[in-house]
Amino acid sequence: MPSERTTVRRRAARGRYDVETVHAVLDEGIVCHVAVADDEGPVVLPTGYVRVGDEVVLHGSAANRLLRLAADGRPVCLTVTLLDGLVLTRSAFHHSMNYRSVVAFGRARVVEGEEKERALAAFVEHMVPGRSAVARPPSPSELAAPLVLAVPLHEASAKVRTGPPIDDEADAALDVWAGVVPLAVVAGEPVPDH
Amino acid sequence: MPSERTTVRRRAARGRYDVETVHAVLDEGIVCHVAVADDEGPVVLPTGYVRVGDEVVLHGSAANRLLRLAADGRPVCLTVTLLDGLVLTRSAFHHSMNYRSVVAFGRARVVEGEEKERALAAFVEHMVPGRSAVARPPSPSELAAPLVLAVPLHEASAKVRTGPPIDDEADAALDVWAGVVPLAVVAGEPVPDH
Repeated sequence: MPSERTTVRRRAARGRYDVETVHAVLDEGIVCHVAVADDEGPVVLPTGYVRVGDEVVLHGSAANRLLRLAADGRPVCLTVTLLDGLVLTRSAFHHSMNYRSVVAFGRARVVEGEEKERALAAFVEHMVPGRSAVARPPSPSELAAPLVLAVPLHEASAKVRTGPPIDDEADAALDVWAGVVPLAVVAGEPVPDH
Repeated sequence: MPSERTTVRRRAARGRYDVETVHAVLDEGIVCHVAVADDEGPVVLPTGYVRVGDEVVLHGSAANRLLRLAADGRPVCLTVTLLDGLVLTRSAFHHSMNYRSVVAFGRARVVEGEEKERALAAFVEHMVPGRSAVARPPSPSELAAPLVLAVPLHEASAKVRTGPPIDDEADAALDVWAGVVPLAVVAGEPVPDH
């Protein structure tokens, strides 16, 4: 059940509340945007993440101010957005984008001990599956250094737009190209270090 | 001069404060993440945008709650992130990403009249240059409908990581592939509407 805050209101038909959709978006994304507010207002920063079960795990320097505010129990909002295409309509007004996004609200908990070790391995696995078995594992001080936080997904929802442009009927006959320009994040040729 | 809030503290050497870098990131991005806080905490949502001069312009439904909070003068934080690559080091610990991001803090003003008309055309131009001359122009009611906001860039900074992986010296000889996997947003074959 969506909460008051996670109910999609604008374009409500695009709201998705099933765990499968939420997890699929989170598992495909690489960077999330995390917001925490202090007395001056909100701060939103990009950071890597990984979904582990029904939480999103973040990590960073123990001196990272945004993570420290989150670790102190301030409310967190976390968003992952996958941009799938530009939607060109015959009218300027109806131009849109195809996308899949997830927004989660919650308070973070600090992840420690063996769970922290597994979370740090999961980060590397999320970037490149299989990688954590290949790279040199973290030393005790490397395990101790970062601050690792978990944000619950019990107050999360997805919003999805797919498909063709939607023009007003009166515009359907206009001689203007309309359609979708698909967009995707594509990996190029790896550049080896030397 | 960076303000207290826009001074990059984590990995300070990655901070960039020149207008050219900030504008270049904003002009290349398509989606920004906008955060506004209410009494329950921050909300961060993805949305299209366009830079016009030294402001970032947002638009949406006049019923959009986040935009309404911003229009009411609540502090806004706006972030654009371009992900350029995965950085694989020999150690799990030093894995990183290449990216260019901009964070701006400010309060929004409502854009109206002829300036609103130009801003709405600029949105379409930012998606597809040349498009606003081709698509049917907005009718008076289409011009009136959206809420258009401008967020100033006088408190903005960029953060940039480029280049190869950086391993500990002791790891340099490890037999582990290290390097950069470049990532880019790539447009596929356009799919015409029918």
